[in-house]
Parts: sequence; structure tokens; C-alpha cells
Amino acid sequence: MPMKIVTIGGGTGQFTLLSALRESPNVDITAIVSMVDSGGSTGRLRDEYGVLPPGDILKCLIALSSFQDAREILQARFSSHEKLAGHNAGNLLLTFLSQHLGNDFSGAVVALGEILQVKGRVIPVTTDKATLVAELENGRLVYSETAIDVGRDKEAKIKRTFLVPHSGKLEASRNAIEAIETADMIIVGPGDLYTSIVPNFLVPGIKEAIEKAPAKLVYVANLMTKFGETRGFSLRNFVDVVEGSQGRPIDIVIANNKIPELALLEKYLGEGAEPVRFDLETEIDKRQIILEDLISEGDLARHDVGKLREVLMGVVGEQQV
Amino acid sequence: MPMKIVTIGGGTGQFTLLSALRESPNVDITAIVSMVDSGGSTGRLRDEYGVLPPGDILKCLIALSSFQDAREILQARFSSHEKLAGHNAGNLLLTFLSQHLGNDFSGAVVALGEILQVKGRVIPVTTDKATLVAELENGRLVYSETAIDVGRDKEAKIKRTFLVPHSGKLEASRNAIEAIETADMIIVGPGDLYTSIVPNFLVPGIKEAIEKAPAKLVYVANLMTKFGETRGFSLRNFVDVVEGSQGRPIDIVIANNKIPELALLEKYLGEGAEPVRFDLETEIDKRQIILEDLISEGDLARHDVGKLREVLMGVVGEQQV
Repeated sequence: MPMKIVTIGGGTGQFTLLSALRESPNVDITAIVSMVDSGGSTGRLRDEYGVLPPGDILKCLIALSSFQDAREILQARFSSHEKLAGHNAGNLLLTFLSQHLGNDFSGAVVALGEILQVKGRVIPVTTDKATLVAELENGRLVYSETAIDVGRDKEAKIKRTFLVPHSGKLEASRNAIEAIETADMIIVGPGDLYTSIVPNFLVPGIKEAIEKAPAKLVYVANLMTKFGETRGFSLRNFVDVVEGSQGRPIDIVIANNKIPELALLEKYLGEGAEPVRFDLETEIDKRQIILEDLISEGDLARHDVGKLREVLMGVVGEQQV
Repeated sequence: MPMKIVTIGGGTGQFTLLSALRESPNVDITAIVSMVDSGGSTGRLRDEYGVLPPGDILKCLIALSSFQDAREILQARFSSHEKLAGHNAGNLLLTFLSQHLGNDFSGAVVALGEILQVKGRVIPVTTDKATLVAELENGRLVYSETAIDVGRDKEAKIKRTFLVPHSGKLEASRNAIEAIETADMIIVGPGDLYTSIVPNFLVPGIKEAIEKAPAKLVYVANLMTKFGETRGFSLRNFVDVVEGSQGRPIDIVIANNKIPELALLEKYLGEGAEPVRFDLETEIDKRQIILEDLISEGDLARHDVGKLREVLMGVVGEQQV
């Protein structure tokens, strides 16, 4: 029996996680993806065609695809025409497939997954449209993922977030619930805490399913804080938000212990971001903490797919014994 | 200066020709594609969305793409959903791009070509919609490419074909005309004579441009006759139709001289198709005739890309000296 792994997240973090998991032997992967992305191409398509945001789903499909060229073909941005600038073929295809199927976004995701010969499944956490709202500590409300992530006064911290459904209805995808209920392992993160990770738990049904699930709960922590979302956060702060927003303790925390190169560090410090401080009390804590060098070479502080794969395969292997 | 080569055709034949040309050094390829395909996925999209037929254009873009996986990703047929069955991602993408750009099909072709990093250019012969009509020798008229190709009483031979524009307007693409006018070599065929090759010459402006063009005119003949279109045709019959429909003698004829394997032959004979008989009088003819083994291994009588490439590179090389 392959080990049933459910990942929960969104954005580039989940792309990296899935890329790391894809090559693991004997795993059955289900990626559950948050549906509140409102930026860039995704936001424009959503506004113009009223579809669900395709960008994060596309990233997951590509990460799990059998085709090496899938990323270049489907994520390269058009530049030949003003109306296309910034879009990519994958987002357009998901949008059109959804429309063609009578606004069946889940059907569109299945269809593109079939063509891309994905290993595993990609499931939108919900197919009900909703806007992410953040309540700041100064009482102000900020609407939409983009505004929370980049557009607001970032001095005030986020107090809490919630989802406001567009049609009054907001339910988790049935397939997402089932995958969580039957999983052997649930892996949360990495990714923007309040705009990619937590929005999954805000969809009614997800939190409850995780609470009851027999699966081990693994959290892959971010490498860096982010000024607008998690300024000054330590690892414990991240863990507290993840645990607090779905009500169940994490079993295994995977975190990076390598300080980035100075040049990279300076760039991030200039943006008000810093390496996530390690402050969990490993000795007295029930959680298993795995601290490793997980950082990739390059000019962005990103998880290295190979290093993350190695750690994950260790964790998966331990659970399989 | 690279040699400017214009190909004229449609369907699988042009895909093979472009695949053969793509690797040739120092060539600048422009593929002009007929726009009368009415079958399968293409026909359904055309009927549902009123777009130009994307299928043959897609084949050319894929043949010229830099990505190995382009064919598998964009031409694999969906099967997960009844409404998608038979469609492929490439046809859907061209359709949606065209719609998104306000019915700018040429713009859609340029955009997808950009993403696929095509070597050269692919140009629809016209962006005006039209129906191909065949007048049979018994006086009957048959409407649409599919009906001519597969759906009619095939005992009666085709007397002539013509295009009936949908809106009263039918003009060749300006880019197609310019490419023909400035080409060093024009390569016609292979492909279904009346439904992929001749429809290009029927678009006002194309025939006139070819007549005036200084380029060498090369014709790559079909391997087999086709019951519904060219039953019993000899090489001369093919050449006569190609020359007659655009009014200019062919300079170089490239034809196959290898008889297919018996099993393959029997299959084709059962469908009323046979190898194209060679009957051009080489000695007294002004045309250069190149006869080679051009047939591929396999269960269809198709041009072998490698063999065709070798012959074409010889022809191109001779002209470059």
C-alpha cells in the first residue's frame, strides 16, 4: 500500500513541496490548494471571467506532471499582445476548460491533470468563491489576498483572518475532506502563512476533518518571515498560528537551521524579512523537531527541492516502518 | 543570410514536412496553413465558438516548437469529461486565445508560437471564414472539408473545388502574401490534395503571389492516392492539379519510389488507395524529379521525417550554392 500523503498550502511553497514529494517511492499524493489568490494573471482572469483563481492549482499540477517541459510551456508569460501580457497558457487553459464545462472548475483541474499525467491529485480546497479578509490589531479590515500580502500599511499586525463567501455558500470540496480523513500523513506548508496556508483551514469542514484525522500532522516551516504577514515571527509563532487555526497539535515540525548567505540576508533584511528564529523547546515539547539545512543556492531564500526531499523521505520512511 | 522557405499545405503532411525542415541549418521557415478543416475537435470548436479551425495550425506550431513535450501536452486528447472528449489542450488554447483577443486568430497563433518557442512562423492562409465546396464530375456539389474527404459517394471524381466565404469577404493574410513574395523556396505538400493543398491556392491573392514569386517551387508528392479525393491518380495527375490550381510550373518534384510492405499495401488497397504511380517523363520534362525511398516504417504509409529531411537538405543545399 502506498502511503497516502495530503499536502495543504498554496503558492510557490506548495510547488516546492510537491516537487520534493513527487519522486518519493510508494506515495499517493493529494494536494489541497487554497483558493484566495487574487494577484496578477490569476486576479485578472478571475475578474474578467468570474472563474476561481487558477494560478496555485496550475503550480501544483505542473509540480506533479510527468512532463519536463510542462512548466516552460504552461507557465511562460505571454508578451506578444497587451491583453495577454502577464498571463500564461496554463491559467488561460484552466479558465477556458472551466468555462467550457459550464463553470466546473474541479472538472477543469481533473482534465488538465489528465493531460499533464500528474502523479497524484490536485484538489481546490473549495469551489465556492470567497474573499479573504484580515482584521489587523488596530481594528482595520483588509480585503483580498493581494491587499493583505502587499498592499496595506504593514506596521499593524494581523489579528485574525476570515473568508467571506461571494454567494453566501462556502463548503470544502468533498474530495478534500475525504483525502484528509483517509490520509496517513498531512503536510502543511511552506508558504505565506495568512494568505496561502491558513485560508485552507478557514473553509468550513477542513479544520474539523483535520482534527479527527488519524494522520500524522507535519508542518514544513517557512525559511523567512515576511514583513506584511509575519514580521518578527519565531518558529513558535508560526506553529501557534497553524495549530490555533485548525485546532490540532503538529506531530512533526521540519525547519531550516542554515543562515542564508550574507548578500541574500541583507536583501531580505532590507524588506523587513529575516530568518525564522528557532525557539521551540525541543526537550519538553511533544512535537518531533527536525532541523536541517533546507535552503537552496540562488538569489531567493527558497527551499531546496533536493534537501527537502531527503528530509521528507526520511520522515515518510520512518512512518512506513 | 538564411534561406527563406515557405511551406504551403495543411494536416499531417505539413506536420511531417516541417518536422523535417526544422533541423535544417540556416533556414527561415514560414508555414502557410489552409483554413478549411471541418472535422473532429476542430469542427466542434468552430461550430460552438465560431473560431477559425485550429487543428492544422496547432500541428505546425508543434512541429516547429523547441519543446519535445509540446506534442504530448497539447495534442493528447481529453477523456475525463464527455464535453471534452476528443478535444486537445492545444485546440482549446488557440480557441480561447482567439476569443480573449477579440476574435484575433492570427494574434492567438503568434502568442502560442511565442510560448512554444517555434523556429519560424506559422500563418493561416486567411483569417476569413469560408466553406470548401467540391463540384463532382456528376455535377453534384459537396460542402465542407469533412464531407469531401470522408462523407460522400466516392465513385464520382472531383471536377473542381472552390471556397465560399461566410461573410462575403475572403482575402489572403497579408503576411502570407509577403512571405511568398520574398521566399527563396516554396514547398507545397504533402497532404490531401483537394482538402489540404489546393484550398490554399483558392484564397484570392495566393495564386497570384506564387505566379510572380522568384522562389523555386518544390512539390513533395503524396505516397498514396486516396479513394475519395485522388483515386487512381498518377504523379502526373497530382502535378497537373497543383500546377493548374496556381498557374505556375513546379521546378522540383520530390516523390517516393519505394513500394510499401505487402501488409501495409493490402490495408490501403482495401480502402481503394494505392501507391502514387510515377509517370512523369523525366527526360523531356523541364522539372527536376527526385525519386527516393521516403516511406517510414510503421503501420501507416507516411513520409519518414529523417529520409525527407535528407532529401530536402540536399535540395536546399543545391539552391544555396
